[in-house]
Amino acid sequence: MNIINLDHISANPLLPEVQDAIIDAAKMNYGNPSSQHQIGDQAAEVMNKARESVASLINAPNPKEVVFTSGGTESVNLGVKGVAFAHAAKGKHIVTSNIEHSAVLRSFRRLKMMDYKVTSVPVDEYGRVNPDHVAKAIRDDTILVSIMHSNNEIGTIQPIKEIAAITREKNVLFHTDAVDSVGVVHIDVQALGVDLLSFASNTFYGPTGMGGLYVRSGTKMWPLLDGGVQENNKRAGAENLIGIVGMGVAADLAKRDMDSRIDQTRKLKARLLEGLPSHIDEYLINGHPKYSLPNLVSVSIKYIEGESVVLILDEESIAVSTRSACAAGALRASHVLLSIGRGFADAQGTMVITFGVENTEEDVARFLVVLKDAVKTLREISPLYNKVAEG
Amino acid sequence: MNIINLDHISANPLLPEVQDAIIDAAKMNYGNPSSQHQIGDQAAEVMNKARESVASLINAPNPKEVVFTSGGTESVNLGVKGVAFAHAAKGKHIVTSNIEHSAVLRSFRRLKMMDYKVTSVPVDEYGRVNPDHVAKAIRDDTILVSIMHSNNEIGTIQPIKEIAAITREKNVLFHTDAVDSVGVVHIDVQALGVDLLSFASNTFYGPTGMGGLYVRSGTKMWPLLDGGVQENNKRAGAENLIGIVGMGVAADLAKRDMDSRIDQTRKLKARLLEGLPSHIDEYLINGHPKYSLPNLVSVSIKYIEGESVVLILDEESIAVSTRSACAAGALRASHVLLSIGRGFADAQGTMVITFGVENTEEDVARFLVVLKDAVKTLREISPLYNKVAEG
Repeated sequence: MNIINLDHISANPLLPEVQDAIIDAAKMNYGNPSSQHQIGDQAAEVMNKARESVASLINAPNPKEVVFTSGGTESVNLGVKGVAFAHAAKGKHIVTSNIEHSAVLRSFRRLKMMDYKVTSVPVDEYGRVNPDHVAKAIRDDTILVSIMHSNNEIGTIQPIKEIAAITREKNVLFHTDAVDSVGVVHIDVQALGVDLLSFASNTFYGPTGMGGLYVRSGTKMWPLLDGGVQENNKRAGAENLIGIVGMGVAADLAKRDMDSRIDQTRKLKARLLEGLPSHIDEYLINGHPKYSLPNLVSVSIKYIEGESVVLILDEESIAVSTRSACAAGALRASHVLLSIGRGFADAQGTMVITFGVENTEEDVARFLVVLKDAVKTLREISPLYNKVAEG
Repeated sequence: MNIINLDHISANPLLPEVQDAIIDAAKMNYGNPSSQHQIGDQAAEVMNKARESVASLINAPNPKEVVFTSGGTESVNLGVKGVAFAHAAKGKHIVTSNIEHSAVLRSFRRLKMMDYKVTSVPVDEYGRVNPDHVAKAIRDDTILVSIMHSNNEIGTIQPIKEIAAITREKNVLFHTDAVDSVGVVHIDVQALGVDLLSFASNTFYGPTGMGGLYVRSGTKMWPLLDGGVQENNKRAGAENLIGIVGMGVAADLAKRDMDSRIDQTRKLKARLLEGLPSHIDEYLINGHPKYSLPNLVSVSIKYIEGESVVLILDEESIAVSTRSACAAGALRASHVLLSIGRGFADAQGTMVITFGVENTEEDVARFLVVLKDAVKTLREISPLYNKVAEG
């Protein structure tokens, strides 16, 4: 099976060095880092090393500010609910944006069932939040602002630094969902000025089901998982040592190779955007032309269904997605695309291409050729297209 | 380092077959089980297979009743908080026991901060709950009973079936923390009659940071982690495929070898209990003589500190613990030991020995000899012991 993977946002392959680290960890049979005897010592050591690697990737001043979790979704849930629960006495109002990932969206929907109030600020046609809107949305009882770093469907990167300046001034905690950013672009929690930042190991070619939450020292929050005193009392439970070791190595590699990864994926993205006009017509590119992930292209193709394109491409051994894998199966139009002003039909005709380190220019060339045929085939059977084509 | 591990409750080594499965999974580079193209197909397939293996181990009628989690602690938190949140409109009263694991204990402490009320029933001198006490504690506003299957410090097994008959009759949901039971003794969720049952992969020699929650079909609960629609809408987040594969294989092995594991550890436990009187004096065995885990011995040795014994044994390359690794570092006396009537001093002099599949009779013999010396050494420097010895 020689598949061209242009759906890295659903899953990144493990890098060979990460595979080796996981294999070694499986063979090592580490003990429990919390245990009282020497069997646990080595486990504690490798865990500390991985924490330092991850802290370094996001430039956290203190490795203890990194809380290991079971992935991006848990990080987001811990970040927003942990803060919401701990600060309920001060207030129950939260500010977020219209285009968050389902982990944020549904965490807030859950909090609303517990009498929290949520103000959701709009985005412009490129999917960007206006920091002024955030400033205006903050009330006396606001305890948390949560705005994603980059959007998983259209790639737009938000003005996080500007928003953080506002939350800092207004003394409100700021969480950012950076699950699709950490490992793809440079992330520096100190430069950004955020209080909490969620990320996932697989975004930087580490194992799935592993992630982390940056929690600035002194940030008051409740654990979601109560029990033992692991993770600086912020997340109980015996640690996924194999996952932690894998994420640590992946973090080292991401830091080392960040510039070349950005450079490589940016070139592929440019190549794709340049090639599209000569292969298909009547399409729209979604997301911000400048403030955007270097590895993601979202394109809405008129008069077709994105799902159908995905199926045809899959038959040709090319993997793309219509939206995040988390939302696959949901038949509703993307809230992100509707928020940037796309109509229902355009939203349904959308495809997300995400590049990874193993992609080549040949992959892009092949994709364009297959896409051209797929769009032609689908439009031929589209009643709407035929009607339009007839005038 | 040739360490005799008599602390399997802190961490079990991975079985060779589990290691091989993890190594293969790391090499396979599985995609995302939720993705829309063929890269995810194989991931979905191995995940389903693992779910069937785990369901089979606990005799769940439907694999969909198994929710994969990041370990025993998450399972417990999801089980008790998920039910508590979802049933708040009916009532906010919960019944539990005095000797639960910190994951249950602290989950309820957290719920109390959210206006839930908790009735904790006592245990007898062997650590057993009287089902009548549970029946009497249930009120009109009781929504959940949570009583552990086996105790992690003294090994006592509770009359779960009898309690389940009561909760079923009174129409209250019943969760049992079986984290230290599944893989150690036969567990059959249908025979037990429970609604929710927590377990952890490492207890049956699978990877740490991986576990599951049995949720009987139709049980209303909230997810703790909101986001995608994974795990039958009960637990969002991209799955830890490597951990899942490892747990699946570990479950197959546990089912196959359960009888021999019980037999082997029971013999070692008997050997230890028989050998103790000729090696040390003035000690108490904790837990029920009959209803008890076959692999666990808890012994309170008078006039010494358990912590000191652990240290001396560690120097002799024998690993034991004073209590669960989760509670290591906490200086307070065990709530479990106090609950069965041990005094503070006896509680502090307690040591937990847990056997695993790789232990031998020679391990027990060596342990007894080293323990004898350790106790002698420690008592020589104990002012209390010298006072008692002098009369």
